[in-house]
Amino acid sequence: MATILDGKKVAGKLAEKVKEKVKFLNEQKIFPTLCVIEVGNDPASKIYLRVKRNLAKQVEINEKTINFDDDVKQDKLIDTIKELNNDPTISAIMVQLPLPAHLDQSKIIEAIDPAKDADGFHPYNQGKLWQGNSQVIPATVRSIMSLLNEYDIQLEGKNALIIGRSIIVGKPLASQLLNKNATVTIAHSKTQNLSTLTKKADIIISDVGQAHLIKEDMIKNDVVLIDVGMNRENGKLLGDINFQTCLPKASAITPVPGGVGPLTVASLMYQVVLLTENQNNG
Amino acid sequence: MATILDGKKVAGKLAEKVKEKVKFLNEQKIFPTLCVIEVGNDPASKIYLRVKRNLAKQVEINEKTINFDDDVKQDKLIDTIKELNNDPTISAIMVQLPLPAHLDQSKIIEAIDPAKDADGFHPYNQGKLWQGNSQVIPATVRSIMSLLNEYDIQLEGKNALIIGRSIIVGKPLASQLLNKNATVTIAHSKTQNLSTLTKKADIIISDVGQAHLIKEDMIKNDVVLIDVGMNRENGKLLGDINFQTCLPKASAITPVPGGVGPLTVASLMYQVVLLTENQNNG
Repeated sequence: MATILDGKKVAGKLAEKVKEKVKFLNEQKIFPTLCVIEVGNDPASKIYLRVKRNLAKQVEINEKTINFDDDVKQDKLIDTIKELNNDPTISAIMVQLPLPAHLDQSKIIEAIDPAKDADGFHPYNQGKLWQGNSQVIPATVRSIMSLLNEYDIQLEGKNALIIGRSIIVGKPLASQLLNKNATVTIAHSKTQNLSTLTKKADIIISDVGQAHLIKEDMIKNDVVLIDVGMNRENGKLLGDINFQTCLPKASAITPVPGGVGPLTVASLMYQVVLLTENQNNG
Repeated sequence: MATILDGKKVAGKLAEKVKEKVKFLNEQKIFPTLCVIEVGNDPASKIYLRVKRNLAKQVEINEKTINFDDDVKQDKLIDTIKELNNDPTISAIMVQLPLPAHLDQSKIIEAIDPAKDADGFHPYNQGKLWQGNSQVIPATVRSIMSLLNEYDIQLEGKNALIIGRSIIVGKPLASQLLNKNATVTIAHSKTQNLSTLTKKADIIISDVGQAHLIKEDMIKNDVVLIDVGMNRENGKLLGDINFQTCLPKASAITPVPGGVGPLTVASLMYQVVLLTENQNNG
C-alpha cells in the first residue's frame, strides 16, 4: 500500500517556516508585502485570491490587491506594474491569471521586475531555472519538489515522466528534476504511446486536466504518483490519476484534494519571503 | 542504408540565405556587425575564431574581435560589454568560451543585452525559448533543427532522446523538440539505463563527448541519429555514435566530421542577421 503524500501536513510545516522568517525580517523592520493584480471578476480567481489572502494573514505577510475592470488598457496595467517595481514597500508582484483575451499575457509578465516576480513566470527567471540553482521557482513546481523532498523520495538516476508541458508546471518542473539527476521525459497531448511511457516510469507527475487518465494497468509496481490535475465532475474534484485503483500498486501517491493543491499557496508565500530576503541582502 | 545528413550542404544553403539577407540590409545602410570577446590565447578558441572570421567575411558580416589578457578583471570585461550594448554599430556580441576560472561566466553572459546575444545563452533568451517561438536560439540547437527540417524528418509524436544536458545544447534543444511536438527525454551521466532508452527512441541526439558511446546493438531499426560529439582519438575526430556500424540500421545519420559541426558557424551568422533585423524593425 502506497504512502499517501500529505500536502496539507507539508504545507503546514512550510507555513511555519515562512512565519518564522517573516518574524525575523520584521525584527529588522522589513515587512514582506505581496501585491496581487486582478483583472475583472473571475469567480475561480476570487476563490484563489481569498485563500492567498487568508494564508498571507496567517503567516503575517502583507497582502494588497489592485483590481482593474475587465476592459483595462494594457498600457495602464503595465504602468501600474512599473510603479510597483519601483515601490520599495512592495516585495513581490503577481498577476492573477488567466487575463482577458485583449491583454498580452507575456508582455504583462515581462513588465514585472524579475527580482519581484512572485510566480516565477518571467522569462529571465525561467531561464535561470534551467541554468542552475535559481531561487525563483513557480509555486506548483516548488510544491512538488517539497513533497518529494519531505518524503525522502530518491530522484537520482530515476525515470521521471512529466505529463503536460505548461510554463507553469511541466517545463520548469523538468529543470528541477534534472537538477536532482533524474532522467526526465516530457509527454503531452501529441504523445502517441503514453502507456508505454507510464509503465517504464519510476515517478509520474501528471498535469493534464483529464479525470482519471492514469489507471492501475498503466503503471508499474512501486511507482511514485504526483497528481497536479484538478477536474470537477458532478461536483466532485478528481485528479488525473485514479487514486483508489492506483493506491495498492504505487509506493507513494498524492491524494486529490489534499496533495499538491494545498501546498501551492504556502509555496507562493515562501517565494515572497525569499524575494524579500534577496532584496535586502548586501 | 541510412540517409547521410550532410551538414556541409545545409550550411552552404544557410550561408547563401544569410548573404542575401545581409545584401538586403546593406541596401538600407544597415551593416550587421558581430563583436567577439576573447580572453587569453586558448589554441582551440583561436581555431574556432578563425573559422568564424572566414565565414563572416564570406557572408559579408562585419566581424571584430576584442582580445583581453588571461588575467583581465571581471569588471573591465563587463564594462566593455556594456559599452558594446550601447554602441549602435554593434549588432551582436559573443563571449568566446571557456573563460579563465577567475571569471564568473554567468555574470559575464548576463551583462550582454539580450537583444545582442549572438550565442543565445542569456537567461532571458533561454527562458523565452521555453515560452514559445523565440528567434534567439543557440547555434548548435539551430543547426540540429535545420538539419531535421532540411531532410523532412517528422518530429510530431516521435520519441526524441537527448543525451547531455548542457545549457548550450541539451536543455535548449529539448525546448525546440517539444515545440515540434516530439515527446522528449533528457538523459545524462547519472542516467542508469541508457540502452533501454536508446532502444525505444525514434530520434537520438548525443552531446556527451564519449567516442562511440552509441553502438548498433543499442538502437532500433530506422532510428534518426544526430551526433554532436567531437572526440579526438589518436589524431582522428570521432563522434559519440559509431557511424560505420550504425549506418546500416538507422534511417538517417550525421557523419562526424561533416554533420552538425559545419552548420554551427553558419547558424551563428544567421543569428547575427536576425538580431540585426529585430533591432531595425519598428
